[in-house]
Amino acid sequence: MSRYFPRRDQCGHHVIFGNIPITTYAGDHMQISVVDLPPEGVVEWHAHANEQMGMVVSGRALFHIGDEVKELQPGDVYWMPGNVRHKVIPIDGPVRAVDIFYPIRDEYR
Amino acid sequence: MSRYFPRRDQCGHHVIFGNIPITTYAGDHMQISVVDLPPEGVVEWHAHANEQMGMVVSGRALFHIGDEVKELQPGDVYWMPGNVRHKVIPIDGPVRAVDIFYPIRDEYR
Repeated sequence: MSRYFPRRDQCGHHVIFGNIPITTYAGDHMQISVVDLPPEGVVEWHAHANEQMGMVVSGRALFHIGDEVKELQPGDVYWMPGNVRHKVIPIDGPVRAVDIFYPIRDEYR
Repeated sequence: MSRYFPRRDQCGHHVIFGNIPITTYAGDHMQISVVDLPPEGVVEWHAHANEQMGMVVSGRALFHIGDEVKELQPGDVYWMPGNVRHKVIPIDGPVRAVDIFYPIRDEYR
């Protein structure tokens, strides 16, 4: 078993906002979360103290962060400072994004 | 100009290990780095105090971390704790990976 190359069964598996699976792995201070939004999956408005950064890997989605909104495509990067509300809505199909949280969200381990 | 959705000209642009472009953006405590390895681009053995986590976005690469080695594919996640040596070698073509550093690497801003 590797600490550096986690197998699927070493990762956390959660379903958020009803129908959005995430696969997570925590390091010492930060945590990665691979998010697979189905076409009808919406990350509803929410906020958390943890800082979040990420990139869209595939698909297109409308990202709301604070009072800004932008359609993001693969390779586009976003930043959600702690306690800034955000919402994500897929456009015309599924979306994969990779997020990192700092500090670690214990509920997503 | 958006803080949450950085445009290309708001990002850092660096070339590491001779021929590997990276595109970076720093938040409050962590920093994202989108790494585009050309087929002949090798991230040579190195280490840094900053913790690093990431995911392969496209292509395949041989990752060495500490005394472990694994071939990674798109969607595979890796973790490099602070001060653990690592090296990355593309396999049969270019590789895109997304990395996050904590804390921020000032030299990559």
